Amino acid sequence: MSVLVVGSVALDDVETPAGRADGVLGGAASYFSVAASFFEKVRAVGVVGEDFPAEHLEFLASCGIDISGIATEKGKTFRWGGVYSESMSERETRFTELGVFEEFAPELGAAHRGSEFVFLANIHPSLQLQIVEQADSPRFVAMDTMNFWIEGAPAELERVLARVDALVINDEEARQLSGEHNLVLAAAALRGRGPATVIIKRGEYGCLLFGPDQVFSAPAYPLEVVRDPTGAGDCFAGGFVGALARAGDLSPEAFRRAVIYGSVVASFCCEHFSLGGLRDLSIEAIESRFEEFRSLTRF
Amino acid sequence: MSVLVVGSVALDDVETPAGRADGVLGGAASYFSVAASFFEKVRAVGVVGEDFPAEHLEFLASCGIDISGIATEKGKTFRWGGVYSESMSERETRFTELGVFEEFAPELGAAHRGSEFVFLANIHPSLQLQIVEQADSPRFVAMDTMNFWIEGAPAELERVLARVDALVINDEEARQLSGEHNLVLAAAALRGRGPATVIIKRGEYGCLLFGPDQVFSAPAYPLEVVRDPTGAGDCFAGGFVGALARAGDLSPEAFRRAVIYGSVVASFCCEHFSLGGLRDLSIEAIESRFEEFRSLTRF
Repeated sequence: MSVLVVGSVALDDVETPAGRADGVLGGAASYFSVAASFFEKVRAVGVVGEDFPAEHLEFLASCGIDISGIATEKGKTFRWGGVYSESMSERETRFTELGVFEEFAPELGAAHRGSEFVFLANIHPSLQLQIVEQADSPRFVAMDTMNFWIEGAPAELERVLARVDALVINDEEARQLSGEHNLVLAAAALRGRGPATVIIKRGEYGCLLFGPDQVFSAPAYPLEVVRDPTGAGDCFAGGFVGALARAGDLSPEAFRRAVIYGSVVASFCCEHFSLGGLRDLSIEAIESRFEEFRSLTRF
Repeated sequence: MSVLVVGSVALDDVETPAGRADGVLGGAASYFSVAASFFEKVRAVGVVGEDFPAEHLEFLASCGIDISGIATEKGKTFRWGGVYSESMSERETRFTELGVFEEFAPELGAAHRGSEFVFLANIHPSLQLQIVEQADSPRFVAMDTMNFWIEGAPAELERVLARVDALVINDEEARQLSGEHNLVLAAAALRGRGPATVIIKRGEYGCLLFGPDQVFSAPAYPLEVVRDPTGAGDCFAGGFVGALARAGDLSPEAFRRAVIYGSVVASFCCEHFSLGGLRDLSIEAIESRFEEFRSLTRF
């Protein structure tokens, strides 16, 4: 079943203890699309500037992603620069240059409107709401957000929350958005505001899914080498929504398996800079690591 | 199979965002013993002062713990005071008064020497080594330690490490002791120094077990209410060693189940101050939460 993602396509300058990479492909929609493309047909909606290298669009297209919704506008592509701490558990933003992304006002074409699975990546909640309103009764809508919108656009964010099936955010955002430090209480509060399913990402510690009648805990894959965690959360979301769409099944069991697929793709993402860890990845390698998750958690 | 633990028996003053408790039963050997007592016969070895309330010894005995190895010496019982941060993820020690514990020099009696499962709680490595040397070829020896000994008695610690089957420590200690930030590499380095099994505790995030030919990840139970995390790590160790002793089986599967039992008992520990969460706990409640861990992790 088709997957639609709306979000940023960017050029990143990233520095981690493992090295640095400048002007590499980044942005939530890029990471999400490539991750989801292992499972289903993906349509990406975003905007880039005239400076955006053709090779990046070619790479996305080579993954089978429908890039017809990625507009090229006059001006510069969204650029982000960040540096990670020695332990990689913290990162500092060096710069954010919105460029053409500042005027991003996504308009869905007819094919895009019919997408059955929709992911609203981390963009202004009023844009997320516009997408929800343009889509023709999708089966499943999930969203991400961040501290910037939680603080800056709470009313709009509340309206999107009320319209989605799932919220996928990290632990600090869950605490901030709910006002509850305890994650069980935070998830309960957030579920009461709209999304039947709340997935709380905890980085190297894995994630927790809170859904109707179930709580599911998934570890992160214990990696020996982490080069760049940028985009891991978006790869998680891409693997999760992609696997759910492939299954075409919204049962509790399907959610659990989709969470593991999301964790698998996120783990490959962290092993290389930018989308390097997903570039030559095969579905066989994904399935094999999925089985490793079984062996990691069974008792 | 009988379990022996050697460590501190203390009186704690604890303050958390949920309240405070003064002069309550604490100490690694207390927490470990009570946790392990749900599974097997436990012998506790430690020392208390003349000020130690008889009711605490009576409570330990009421759990079926053999307290004949807990000596009462002239002087004061080891006292510790600590206060937890608002999120409970950090704690500050307010005071540590060693009292009679300063002169602790455990001497095992004949019955104690024959124990098949031994846990060396967090005490000076030279004392841990003495215990290992006094014990008659136990089937399984596990140890804990802390930053104080890692920094202050590294040579002695190295000698104990070489003699144990399992090391049970938290993530920061694993990093400090191994010099590796990455936990997969830290565990590999530590396993190379003696213990075939290394269990890294990560508090609210659960734990990782690294053993011969296996890696196992266990979540922490998602608690709605955490009143006092003091002793949770020792309860984990107690549940783990106790369950392993009950099974009388050192297979990879037995280790996994024992880790879950440890996590179960630790979760009950956090729900109340001191040993309150274990005081009226039944083996049925433990088995029931064990099954909840299955439902929490299966996919």
